[in-house]
Amino acid sequence: MRRIIFLLVAVATLAGVVGFTATASRHAADEAAPIFVKEIPAGYRDWRLVSVAHEEGNLKDIRAILGNDSAIDTYREGKLPFPDGAIIGRIAWSHVPSEENNKVFGREQSFVAGAEPPWYLQFMVKDSKKYAATGGWGYAQFDKDGKPGPESDLKKCFPCHQAIKDRDFVFTRYTP
Amino acid sequence: MRRIIFLLVAVATLAGVVGFTATASRHAADEAAPIFVKEIPAGYRDWRLVSVAHEEGNLKDIRAILGNDSAIDTYREGKLPFPDGAIIGRIAWSHVPSEENNKVFGREQSFVAGAEPPWYLQFMVKDSKKYAATGGWGYAQFDKDGKPGPESDLKKCFPCHQAIKDRDFVFTRYTP
Repeated sequence: MRRIIFLLVAVATLAGVVGFTATASRHAADEAAPIFVKEIPAGYRDWRLVSVAHEEGNLKDIRAILGNDSAIDTYREGKLPFPDGAIIGRIAWSHVPSEENNKVFGREQSFVAGAEPPWYLQFMVKDSKKYAATGGWGYAQFDKDGKPGPESDLKKCFPCHQAIKDRDFVFTRYTP
Repeated sequence: MRRIIFLLVAVATLAGVVGFTATASRHAADEAAPIFVKEIPAGYRDWRLVSVAHEEGNLKDIRAILGNDSAIDTYREGKLPFPDGAIIGRIAWSHVPSEENNKVFGREQSFVAGAEPPWYLQFMVKDSKKYAATGGWGYAQFDKDGKPGPESDLKKCFPCHQAIKDRDFVFTRYTP
């Protein structure tokens, strides 16, 4: 009798463990940890221009948004979502006055791209399977030495980009 | 005798006219009227990025400077002057606040590329013979409908660009 009780308890425990594991797995699939891009996409500086922007506040930068061929084609066709393989890059430079230009203009009006801030390069890489946990996009940031940004920073990407889920999570609009 | 005097006067007059014409031609060669570029260079929107800038004052625009392959190669090699065939393009858009971005940032800090101002597109086309009168560069401006800017505006290009003759008359520096 003891042996039977022991077996029953053992089976019940095992079932419980399996059941718990299965639940935990499903939970992990729903809220998987985001995966970040760890390498600078090759050749990004040769990509075509999507648009430009200027950030004040704590950033004080001027930026160019570039896209690889797949991203540019998608922008121009206006057909969302971006396909797997599309990559959007963002280069930021300090927003600095140009003494040289101001002298020619005869007034303080001209700002140009200066040094690279710590958030110099950012990328969004589309891979709907690999980056399923973050809307199909992998996020990346690199400083001028190619060092990836801290994960604590990268974790902030997707929550903000969710604000524009209906544009496939991409803020920048293409300007002809 | 009358006939001889008439001939002498005729020859002297003719010589004078020829002499005057020759002088005028030399004068024209020294201070030739600038020749402006009348057509938008094909495919410019696919060119690679040189840098970005922002103009306040009366312009209030944000701009991207692009270069064709020859221009980009020259920039990257750092070997001036630019060769014949190099073209540098400048696209300007109104510098407008982005309500959408500001909402996400939680503060007024974000500016993006808006509508096309009348000085939407500008180009410098290198042809050391054709544009010899203006430092080897032909200048052009177009609005969003492709209409060339007034010659009175274009005449202002070269005098300003002379300030940077030692950089082959090109203001914008390449930013990696």
